[in-house]
Amino acid sequence: MDLGAKSTTRGDDVILGCGPLNADELAQIIAYWRAANFLTVAQIYLRANPLLTRPLSHNDIKRRLLGHWGTCPGLNLIYAHVNRLIKLHDANVMLVCGPGHGGPAIVANAYMEGTYTERYPSLTCDMAGLELLVKQFSWPRGIPSHVSPDCPGSIHEGGELGYCLLHAYGAALDNKDLIVCCVVGDGEAETGPCAASWHSNKFVNPKRDGCVLPVLHLNGSKIGGASLLSRLPRAELRSLLVGYGHDPLFVHGSTAELVHQQMAAALDFAVARIHAIWREARSGAVAERPRWPMVVLETPKGWTGPAEIDGKLIEGTFRSHQVPASACAHDASHLAALDGWLRSYAPEELFDTQTGALRPRLAALAPTGARRMSANPHANGGELLAPLRLPSPATFAVQLSSPGSVDAECTAVLGQYLRDVFKLNEAAANFRVVCPDEITSNKLAAVFEVTGRIATWDSRPGDEAASADGRVMEVLSEHCCEGWLEGYTLTGRHGLFATYEAFCQTVDSMINQHAKWLKATSEVRWRAPCASLNILLTSHTWRQDHNGYTHQAPGALDNLASKKGSVASIFLPADANCLLLVAHGCLASLHRINAIVAGKHAMPQWLDMPAAQKHCEAGIGEWAWASHAPSGRSGTQPDVVLACAGDVPTLEALAAAAWLRERAPHLALRFVNVVELLCVRTRALHPRGLPPAHFACLFGDDLPVVVAFHGYPQLFASLVHERPHPGRFSVHGYCEEGSTTTPFDMTVVNELSRWHLAIDVLERTSALGGGSHAQLIAELRDKLELHARYIWDHGCDMPEVVDFRWPAGSS
Amino acid sequence: MDLGAKSTTRGDDVILGCGPLNADELAQIIAYWRAANFLTVAQIYLRANPLLTRPLSHNDIKRRLLGHWGTCPGLNLIYAHVNRLIKLHDANVMLVCGPGHGGPAIVANAYMEGTYTERYPSLTCDMAGLELLVKQFSWPRGIPSHVSPDCPGSIHEGGELGYCLLHAYGAALDNKDLIVCCVVGDGEAETGPCAASWHSNKFVNPKRDGCVLPVLHLNGSKIGGASLLSRLPRAELRSLLVGYGHDPLFVHGSTAELVHQQMAAALDFAVARIHAIWREARSGAVAERPRWPMVVLETPKGWTGPAEIDGKLIEGTFRSHQVPASACAHDASHLAALDGWLRSYAPEELFDTQTGALRPRLAALAPTGARRMSANPHANGGELLAPLRLPSPATFAVQLSSPGSVDAECTAVLGQYLRDVFKLNEAAANFRVVCPDEITSNKLAAVFEVTGRIATWDSRPGDEAASADGRVMEVLSEHCCEGWLEGYTLTGRHGLFATYEAFCQTVDSMINQHAKWLKATSEVRWRAPCASLNILLTSHTWRQDHNGYTHQAPGALDNLASKKGSVASIFLPADANCLLLVAHGCLASLHRINAIVAGKHAMPQWLDMPAAQKHCEAGIGEWAWASHAPSGRSGTQPDVVLACAGDVPTLEALAAAAWLRERAPHLALRFVNVVELLCVRTRALHPRGLPPAHFACLFGDDLPVVVAFHGYPQLFASLVHERPHPGRFSVHGYCEEGSTTTPFDMTVVNELSRWHLAIDVLERTSALGGGSHAQLIAELRDKLELHARYIWDHGCDMPEVVDFRWPAGSS
Repeated sequence: MDLGAKSTTRGDDVILGCGPLNADELAQIIAYWRAANFLTVAQIYLRANPLLTRPLSHNDIKRRLLGHWGTCPGLNLIYAHVNRLIKLHDANVMLVCGPGHGGPAIVANAYMEGTYTERYPSLTCDMAGLELLVKQFSWPRGIPSHVSPDCPGSIHEGGELGYCLLHAYGAALDNKDLIVCCVVGDGEAETGPCAASWHSNKFVNPKRDGCVLPVLHLNGSKIGGASLLSRLPRAELRSLLVGYGHDPLFVHGSTAELVHQQMAAALDFAVARIHAIWREARSGAVAERPRWPMVVLETPKGWTGPAEIDGKLIEGTFRSHQVPASACAHDASHLAALDGWLRSYAPEELFDTQTGALRPRLAALAPTGARRMSANPHANGGELLAPLRLPSPATFAVQLSSPGSVDAECTAVLGQYLRDVFKLNEAAANFRVVCPDEITSNKLAAVFEVTGRIATWDSRPGDEAASADGRVMEVLSEHCCEGWLEGYTLTGRHGLFATYEAFCQTVDSMINQHAKWLKATSEVRWRAPCASLNILLTSHTWRQDHNGYTHQAPGALDNLASKKGSVASIFLPADANCLLLVAHGCLASLHRINAIVAGKHAMPQWLDMPAAQKHCEAGIGEWAWASHAPSGRSGTQPDVVLACAGDVPTLEALAAAAWLRERAPHLALRFVNVVELLCVRTRALHPRGLPPAHFACLFGDDLPVVVAFHGYPQLFASLVHERPHPGRFSVHGYCEEGSTTTPFDMTVVNELSRWHLAIDVLERTSALGGGSHAQLIAELRDKLELHARYIWDHGCDMPEVVDFRWPAGSS
Repeated sequence: MDLGAKSTTRGDDVILGCGPLNADELAQIIAYWRAANFLTVAQIYLRANPLLTRPLSHNDIKRRLLGHWGTCPGLNLIYAHVNRLIKLHDANVMLVCGPGHGGPAIVANAYMEGTYTERYPSLTCDMAGLELLVKQFSWPRGIPSHVSPDCPGSIHEGGELGYCLLHAYGAALDNKDLIVCCVVGDGEAETGPCAASWHSNKFVNPKRDGCVLPVLHLNGSKIGGASLLSRLPRAELRSLLVGYGHDPLFVHGSTAELVHQQMAAALDFAVARIHAIWREARSGAVAERPRWPMVVLETPKGWTGPAEIDGKLIEGTFRSHQVPASACAHDASHLAALDGWLRSYAPEELFDTQTGALRPRLAALAPTGARRMSANPHANGGELLAPLRLPSPATFAVQLSSPGSVDAECTAVLGQYLRDVFKLNEAAANFRVVCPDEITSNKLAAVFEVTGRIATWDSRPGDEAASADGRVMEVLSEHCCEGWLEGYTLTGRHGLFATYEAFCQTVDSMINQHAKWLKATSEVRWRAPCASLNILLTSHTWRQDHNGYTHQAPGALDNLASKKGSVASIFLPADANCLLLVAHGCLASLHRINAIVAGKHAMPQWLDMPAAQKHCEAGIGEWAWASHAPSGRSGTQPDVVLACAGDVPTLEALAAAAWLRERAPHLALRFVNVVELLCVRTRALHPRGLPPAHFACLFGDDLPVVVAFHGYPQLFASLVHERPHPGRFSVHGYCEEGSTTTPFDMTVVNELSRWHLAIDVLERTSALGGGSHAQLIAELRDKLELHARYIWDHGCDMPEVVDFRWPAGSS
């Protein structure tokens, strides 16, 4: 449907018949829009004199003009019209504002509907409040130019572009009456994550989910260049959006009255269509996948701003992106331009210039209470959060008589636990698992006993575990998985993102932005904490011997470790029981990003449930059964500490310890396992950081420490930098070596193997060996050579390696 | 055009009229396809007995079966038909194979056309060679299951999915006769980067560029679930692809003869259309943006493989993704299934079972020489590489009489240098700059004096610097920028990716994969090194005071630092002259990923060109003019080292040094600046790592070192971990604090400010102050409090801070 179809050209001069708004309604909504535009401009430029009650002077202008005007008039238009929709239909609408640079527009609207004052009582609905409102924007230690966590009604900042639709869809899932209006800027629309996320509509089930109403806002330009989608011929753009599964409604022009009429008509049509889709789906009628409506809004960038400054066109061009009239703090002509611009909105008609209050007839246009988009409860999801009902990890415990006595596939054990999480929370419908098509590959398929892969519309005979009501969302896009789960948790629900470790780095930047959101949110008093974003990193680096070098990358840990300790945790459970406990803790935790690294292949199991419980509570600890003290030396300082973090490193470290106990029994060795990685940082850097005395109990003050680490060695090194004598930590980890080879060869080529660890221990304690260490080292080097020949000849690892089990009775 | 349009159902049973192939041609091409399929299956399963010249036994089977069958028959079909096209038209075609898991298919084809033997003489075209060919695949220390660097003809491994079209377009640019056939798997098509990259066709100018011929290979399933695009109704899929700017040709079915006829017809049509587009564009006819042809190939996953194993459907389902009949090393029924499968191709008709050679009539179907896709010169771009003609950095030098005596905008100076790079290489047409719409914002707009933003089709009056022949590619997708440049450099050209520092992390994973490609490539004897991938990280963290917290993220450095030292370098030039020299060196360098961090705002300049030259050559060095020794102590060990890396940290460190010289003149302080970050690593970890003695000259063995670092403090800490007493390095850097504030406040909230650095120096040398340090520290803390009040009151930094210049005459 083209609401400007009667136009002969593609831009202005649309002659539209009667729109849905009568003359008064039209005038009112335009006035509301003008008020929001006025407050937007005032925030960008003014530090005082917010209603121009005295002549504008250079002193009223901020010294540093930082903001983005271009996108704002369009956002204000959308906001006003969605308000109308909410009031007409008592609709439950949330706004996700993709153009994050539109901060002042969204703040203006939140202020006009009273929420801002409710959240920030000092920003009163009067002249004093207005003055603070305009000053605080883009002011040092004030509020940023994006829709940041301090902005009521937002779950999406949008400083980094690409994720608005994903957050919107995450919010809409399992909220069956919620319409999430999502503004997509034409800049953002060029990003990969955004391009992929249009297909999210295939994952929505209108029986149980709300919906997303995208508004693609084409204003033609980005910072400097034209936007790609705005230059597509209309037919091609329509084809693209239809291909994405939408029914696009086009609204375009630059004559306010006509655009407002079109926009009202478009939203009326859209909401009617949405209600029809819901009705049909919920009445049980078998239906095809619906074509969800969407709006394409084409209006000039910087619309209603100055047409021209310094002889250059501004309105409708890229030059309106940030701050036109940028010199108005000292240039008279710029100041005059700003003055004319501000007064063009006729603020005296919109606000009481005595009190500073918005005129009551305008204020009355906004929805009230929780229907205000700035007060929608879903946008402060922590307030809606119900804790997950979690099964007891003990139910799924791997039983073992002694360390290493049984094998298990860690993620397969976790899969059973997750199955029960789905079961226990079926009625609450507040838990989802997202995954790039790897649930089965990652051995989590037990969840399919109680739920399925969402395939609402297009499943076919032969599909496995496909279900219209499935709560597992699989798409081969880590961006979609991560973004959906962010939106889902920020609106008060729970979930897990299970992914190949290597490809989690495709969303490094999303994790950055989510960590920033969490950190900033924790500083906003009225925001309640949400459930943590839990990421299972599996099919990990060390067991990508089959997929090869491209699939070997542990850098997601480095990225997460660089975030604030208050929001980031990393877990490296060595076996299934530790994994169960760690996952249990993560699902119960709040307001963090938790990464859990766990393998899927059968491996020896080390700790029974009570031992695992104690170990995981501490986060780090000695495994006394794997330590060794020559007779007469128990209780004294050891000669060396052998530490490990990660399942494969733990296996190698234990094999090294066993070999050393047998072949170098004169060495006193303390065996330490790290399950919660950031415990090794200081308490100043991470809330779980060990106090100095506890750290010294494990690692001494100046003992040599050989570390077998899952990730890049330099990450572990950086974590102990603030500890006494950090140089004594000799870290073995992934060194960007490897290919398609055997599992053990992965540890050999990266020098993490049991033999490399033993060599390092022997070298660091050579003074204690009376010459014997050199011989032992030579023996180990021979083994390494033998190994290389063996795998080429046989295509698999030596039995000696594969058959290693912790010596019975030695623990 | 639907080549299966006469079908009444959407899959098989297509009755097609006469195709382009006569009966003999059809039989031949099918035989070629069978041979490739046979060799593919043989590679996945067999360690010996490659032509089944004796009965297949369990011993012939690899112990570890690692590979991916599902995508291969489709790839082999495409390969055979593109071969036909090449021979018919003497066409110059390169293949980019998105489904990286199709390694054995591409290897089979490279072997059949002789290139494999030319590159690896031990893999002869006989039985012995065949035996080695099948054994080496997915064998420990053999070749991986992806199209890895050792595979002739490839520039794209595809282990991580998403980038095939980007690499293809990068290859096609400025290669006017090159057709890059790009196979896009339906799994990969779900990724964000791939979704965005379809629009790359808007950046191709058919007058000067080659083209990309995408083949979207829909085989229906991924690892476990259905693929999204394969489940779209045909009309919706067509709409999507038309919206991407293509004219899709649909080929589908599962009857070999019919599919082969359709495929031949589709490619005939496509190549005719491509030639017509080229002719029209090159004849100077003004044209609209052409609708480039593409092929949608729908064939069953695992086509020609076993229909069923253990009672479960295989062919046409997700179960054919990897290794069907996975137990054939010990299970008789699986072995029988494999035997039947292999023999179904009738290897004795395809190969001489005496010699092992491919039958001559089949071998004759392949193109010859450089026309073979596996021997296309562009796929070994280093061999085509012509060095860039580079201007002398001295031409653009900022002139200064003493350190800090003038201000300059570093990237603006670089922009002039880059302008001349474009000029000098205009005829060679082998240099491009890619950027997410930030050339002007990043102050590189001088390049627009000689070139423009590519806008071949859709520019409008009012666009700035838009040009059909532009060599700057701007799109708001870091993925597109990075991917295009990877493809461009891997095919023997040069370029620069200029981006906001924070958002470079959106391509962390692409950088991982490119680093892996470079590292693996350097181990392949016949691959020549390519130009480096150069990334300018600007609008960096410390000056994102205006855009706020979301735009502050220096983690791209952490990611790059974790790569092999042999392929990664990081530069932090402190001023414009250093930036010029660094950029010059990067553009001349080979086979690396170079990250350069440089700000765009006016800042004091420190080194004249001769000093900068010396400094950049060393990579790190003392700035003696900023060091201080109390009288009588020159030449002795200092009390403390103050080190810095990055432009803002250098400014703060110098301000700290100046303040300390004045207020704590009893301290001997050595001032060290790091321009090439990884020089601080050991030589074992980076080729530019300082030898121990050189390192000790700068930092002593046990001196306290206070470091002002551009990135996360823990990164710098990790880099000095192998140095003596690493714990003495007290590193200040970005700590995830900041918002919209002032530039100096960014350094305050992250404790990198001059005052924080001075406090740290005073604390670490407190024993030398005779009690005075406590007083000085209190004074500095007062300044910090004063600052916080000042910025809230005034909205800008204190003049004392803004006006800091290095004291005249003190150097």
